Amino acid sequence: MGASQQEQGPLRVALLGCGVVGSEVARLLTQQSADLASRVGAPLELVGIAVRDASAPRPLADSIDRSLLTEDAEGLVTRADIVIEVMGGIEPARALLLRAIEAGAAVVTANKALLAEDGPTLYKAADTAGVDIYFEAAVAGAIPIVRPVRESLAGDHVRRILGIVNGTTNYVLDQMATTGMSFDDAVRQAQDLGYAEADPTADVEGFDAAAKAAILASLAFHTRVSLEDVAREGITRITADDVAWAAQTGHVIKLLAIAESVTGDDGGHGVSVRVHPALVPLAHPLAGVRGAFNAVFVEADAAGELMFYGRGAGGSPTASAVLGDVVSAARHRVLGGKGPEESTYAALPILPASTAVTRYQVRLAVDDRPGVLAQVAQVLASKGVSIEAVRQPSEQSAPGADATDDGATGVAHLVITTHAAAEAALAATVDAIAVLEPVREITSVLRVEGA
Amino acid sequence: MGASQQEQGPLRVALLGCGVVGSEVARLLTQQSADLASRVGAPLELVGIAVRDASAPRPLADSIDRSLLTEDAEGLVTRADIVIEVMGGIEPARALLLRAIEAGAAVVTANKALLAEDGPTLYKAADTAGVDIYFEAAVAGAIPIVRPVRESLAGDHVRRILGIVNGTTNYVLDQMATTGMSFDDAVRQAQDLGYAEADPTADVEGFDAAAKAAILASLAFHTRVSLEDVAREGITRITADDVAWAAQTGHVIKLLAIAESVTGDDGGHGVSVRVHPALVPLAHPLAGVRGAFNAVFVEADAAGELMFYGRGAGGSPTASAVLGDVVSAARHRVLGGKGPEESTYAALPILPASTAVTRYQVRLAVDDRPGVLAQVAQVLASKGVSIEAVRQPSEQSAPGADATDDGATGVAHLVITTHAAAEAALAATVDAIAVLEPVREITSVLRVEGA
Repeated sequence: MGASQQEQGPLRVALLGCGVVGSEVARLLTQQSADLASRVGAPLELVGIAVRDASAPRPLADSIDRSLLTEDAEGLVTRADIVIEVMGGIEPARALLLRAIEAGAAVVTANKALLAEDGPTLYKAADTAGVDIYFEAAVAGAIPIVRPVRESLAGDHVRRILGIVNGTTNYVLDQMATTGMSFDDAVRQAQDLGYAEADPTADVEGFDAAAKAAILASLAFHTRVSLEDVAREGITRITADDVAWAAQTGHVIKLLAIAESVTGDDGGHGVSVRVHPALVPLAHPLAGVRGAFNAVFVEADAAGELMFYGRGAGGSPTASAVLGDVVSAARHRVLGGKGPEESTYAALPILPASTAVTRYQVRLAVDDRPGVLAQVAQVLASKGVSIEAVRQPSEQSAPGADATDDGATGVAHLVITTHAAAEAALAATVDAIAVLEPVREITSVLRVEGA
Repeated sequence: MGASQQEQGPLRVALLGCGVVGSEVARLLTQQSADLASRVGAPLELVGIAVRDASAPRPLADSIDRSLLTEDAEGLVTRADIVIEVMGGIEPARALLLRAIEAGAAVVTANKALLAEDGPTLYKAADTAGVDIYFEAAVAGAIPIVRPVRESLAGDHVRRILGIVNGTTNYVLDQMATTGMSFDDAVRQAQDLGYAEADPTADVEGFDAAAKAAILASLAFHTRVSLEDVAREGITRITADDVAWAAQTGHVIKLLAIAESVTGDDGGHGVSVRVHPALVPLAHPLAGVRGAFNAVFVEADAAGELMFYGRGAGGSPTASAVLGDVVSAARHRVLGGKGPEESTYAALPILPASTAVTRYQVRLAVDDRPGVLAQVAQVLASKGVSIEAVRQPSEQSAPGADATDDGATGVAHLVITTHAAAEAALAATVDAIAVLEPVREITSVLRVEGA
């Protein structure tokens, strides 16, 4: 089927961007050229690296000819068989990729923001031009997750994906859990170590995870999901107390990207996609994902539970994923064939986050007198939310409790964990509890996932 | 590139075998036919299920027409576009797959024993015929590992694979670790639960894991590795004491399939492939793999550490992997192209297990008198093996110790953990320690992996 048997000339590879990831891609492309040629069936020739300022000093491996650096990205993409985009951002990345596709190049991109915002435009262009578009590196760095979801699970039904897909926030939460430090201190430490940007908003507010959630949801449910379909809540409100309470109740707090098949109020099927911090039971495989690692937990009808674990960011890990895609695209150039196209046949509705079924853990400060627990339980019962556990810790064992704010004023703490219920019912229940007379404060409301 | 745009007629799918896996494949093929057709771009039509005895009673989903059952496997494979082999064993599976390939069918097999023994014959036949051969289900059931190693990591260098690829032995070891039960009792329990065969040899002696190790090693190192290249040791000698000692030193015992890039005595590169029980530190991601689950831990130059986790056996999980492959093969029928071929360009030598660098934990019973530890340490030093730790537990804390066998006779226990050294040097060291006068018995020798 279109396999060419004659000796194959080199395939021209263009690289857009030469930052942490790009320079590693260039290094591996050149240093591993013999292996890559053997695996592809043709040599890969790096024909140019587009950068904003070609004269700027930059560390490049010795194997890379600096004359490959060019500021003419538009010209570069039209003289390549495969274009790798690792510059990030929406423009000029989108325009350059579209131009590359129109010129007949296969494209490989790590650009989650672009794909979550406007992936379908790129997928459609690639389909029309009959070229490959691959993007393994856009989700969870080195972890093979795009290919497994698109191809390995193509004969199965994905029920749910729970992903730790942002290494920065996982590092921050892990530091808080293991050292007891505050959110601000943990972010500062992540910045010092290069895990977090000077402006950490995209990570800590969940935007990065939301983009990845949209991409994964699209693949898993054969439905277009864009960034704006993703309900998003970051980790900025997570306190050291929350983390300590989580531990005391056998959980760890993780920022999860969740995409799941749900049933709407009208009984119809749909997809819920959301990013929020959640309590994960310690026995769940995701609970053990430490530091800046990523992991994606997949529940499928036939396969059951799967987990994919590894480094979600960094130059080399991301470059590994990029080069795997480059080899796939290059093999198609040599042997014929084409990778998977966008699959949207299911076209499921995106249901609001309020449709999701979840569990809550609610902490509240109440007057320390008899009958309060009964009053709170009554509210839950009246809303049809069933209680899994109520804990009323002694003052000594309550994280964050000390004599100054509690002892004198007669405040008690309650920790209520619910059974699964619709998000909307849970939210309404919390509102109803908050206005009870003996309730002084709803200290925190966290979802429990992965039980 | 060979993509056909006309309306595509159904693709004929033949199924060889209708046991636990086959019946699930048939069920999913028929019950999910609408989804599969959308994902493939053409309907998949199950045209026959070859079984030894078509009249034997068997549970089949209602969606399956029982007239599809046939005893004429040879005839069936010549009237299919895609042949799925889930019958197992070497013959007639090999002959039928070869016949299917010659007849131009793409083949999907879950047959690890056949691939580990004679995969290259099948790969070569498929290559010659220009058809796909896929085998995701042959290694670690539902876990996507073949595709990630072959494709996602195609631009990287795999350094090492450590796999828990046999659910039966993992269940047995996990039961021993969590309940303290003996090996025999744990095997009996696994048999009662259907995790172990009546004759558990293939699992507990590591043959099944060795076949999977051979397949993974071939893919990861682009080198032909067959079952006979795999050094193999089962778990039948693991005692409850070993398991208790492992816990006391911060480890858990797992049966590991290991494939790694090693440097031979002559400085040349090679591959070491082996299966043996090993102590895995509790902090290692593999240590948390419980029950009958499987997991494959991969270390690659650029990607770093990856882990793939899920169900390694069972009807539905294996069927999920089979159907993912069927969709890939079917898409190639519709759109053109072909999956990866056997890649053996590296042709690395298979180095003997003695070349591997590993760590040992040696337990020994010695006369309880001064100077013994020094004598043992002297032997290690003379062999160039450096000691990480020596533990000389009190009798009370020594698992398995009781007054009857120890107290009266003046026996002490030593647990020596070495630093990494060549397997050959370690083995020679153990031999030298065993003949020391105050050494009564080498109680156990276990490798430590994943540190």
